[in-house]
Amino acid sequence: MFSGAQFSIHAMSDNFVDVILGGVRALGSPDDIRLETDDISTLVVGTPQRVFEAMQSAYAESCRLGGHVVLQAHISRGCPGEPDDPLCRPQAAGGSESARANSAGGEGPAATAADVADTADATAAHTASPAAIADPRSVDPIGIPVAAQFSLYPMGTDRYMEVIAAEIEQMKMSGVFDHSKHFCTKLRGDLAKVMAAVHGSFERAAEHAGHVVIQLTVSKGSPSEST
Amino acid sequence: MFSGAQFSIHAMSDNFVDVILGGVRALGSPDDIRLETDDISTLVVGTPQRVFEAMQSAYAESCRLGGHVVLQAHISRGCPGEPDDPLCRPQAAGGSESARANSAGGEGPAATAADVADTADATAAHTASPAAIADPRSVDPIGIPVAAQFSLYPMGTDRYMEVIAAEIEQMKMSGVFDHSKHFCTKLRGDLAKVMAAVHGSFERAAEHAGHVVIQLTVSKGSPSEST
Repeated sequence: MFSGAQFSIHAMSDNFVDVILGGVRALGSPDDIRLETDDISTLVVGTPQRVFEAMQSAYAESCRLGGHVVLQAHISRGCPGEPDDPLCRPQAAGGSESARANSAGGEGPAATAADVADTADATAAHTASPAAIADPRSVDPIGIPVAAQFSLYPMGTDRYMEVIAAEIEQMKMSGVFDHSKHFCTKLRGDLAKVMAAVHGSFERAAEHAGHVVIQLTVSKGSPSEST
Repeated sequence: MFSGAQFSIHAMSDNFVDVILGGVRALGSPDDIRLETDDISTLVVGTPQRVFEAMQSAYAESCRLGGHVVLQAHISRGCPGEPDDPLCRPQAAGGSESARANSAGGEGPAATAADVADTADATAAHTASPAAIADPRSVDPIGIPVAAQFSLYPMGTDRYMEVIAAEIEQMKMSGVFDHSKHFCTKLRGDLAKVMAAVHGSFERAAEHAGHVVIQLTVSKGSPSEST
C-alpha cells in the first residue's frame, strides 16, 4: 500500500515564508517518513498514523509562529496507481500498529509480513486496530483552537455513500462536530482532537475500500465571524 | 443534479482580508449562481460552467490585488447526497449548454426539460457538449501565470482508474501539463488555460460517472523555486 498526503500551509502574513517553512522544517528528517516540498505543497509518505502526526506537527508549529494560518491537506491511501513503499507498512513505524501487522503477517522478517500484506485482499492488514484509533474526546488538547472541514471519498465501490453517511454519524459523536455543509463536514475544536477525528474516519473507511481519499482544510486565527 | 464548489482564497499578506474579500465581492450577486461565505470557504452553486467562471473571476481579482495568492477549490457534481437545484441545470445559465439541454429534454418550458434531466440515467444531459468544452490551447490568456495541481475522483465505479488515466493523457496534450506528482497532476500556464483544462476533465469524467469530484490548488506569485 502507498499512503501519504500533499499538504500546504498558508500563512496570511507578509512573513509567510518564515511561518510556512518554519512549520515544514520543524519536522526535521525522520527516517520513517519521506518529505518532498515544491512551490505548491509538501508530500509526506508514511503510514497513515505518521502522516497525520507529521501534518499536525508542521501545522501546529506554523500556528505557534502566529496569525491566521490554514492547512490544506489531500490525504490518500491505497491508490492503485501509486507504487508500494516500505515506509507505508505499519511495521516500519513501530508501536501498536507494528504488533498488529506482525500478528496478521507472521512472525518472520519485515519482508515476509509485507509480502502477505500486499496481496489485494489484505487491505485490512493496513488499517489500524480499533485500539490504535484515538477517540478524539479523550485526546489531550494542545492549545490550538481551529475550525476545519473535510470530505471523505472511498473509491471504487458503489456503496461509498453508506461509508460516508456512517462517518458523518461518527463525527456527530466526536465532540468536535460543528455542522454539515455542502460537500463536506465542518468541525471545530482543539487541533489535536480535530486531527484525531479525521484520522479515525480515514482508518474506518479503509475497512470498506482499499483506496480512500480525504480532503481536509484546517483554519486557525481567522478574523471572520463563523456561520 | 447538484453542482458547485467550496473554494478558499489564501493571500499571503498582512492585507489578506482586503485581497480575499476583494476577490469574492467582485462576483457581485448574479442571479444564476448562489454564493455563501463562512470563515473557511465560499460555496458557489450553479452549472459547472458558471462555477468554474466564478472561481476564476474571484481568484483573478485577488491575484490582481497583488502578492502570493492561492486558490483551493473542492468541486463536485452529481453527489447523491446533495439536493437537486434548478441553478445547476444548464438551461438556467443560457448559452450553448442551454441549447443542448433543450434538444435533450424537449422544447417545452424549463420544468419539462429539467424533469427529463433529473432521471437517474440522464447524467449525460448535464454534461457540456464537446463544443462547449474549451480547448485550453485556444483559450485567450488573461495575463496571470500560475502553477496548479489537481486530482480527479469519479465516484461509485470500479473503473475510475481508467477515467483518471485517460484524463492524465488529456492533460499531457493540454498545453499546460507540467508533470505528474503523487496523488495529483501539476499544471503550469496562464490561469484561463489552466482553468479550462481542469474544467474539461470535470466534464469528460462526468460522461463515465454521475458523481465527480475535483480537488484543485492554484498558486500565483510563490517565491519558491519550482521543482
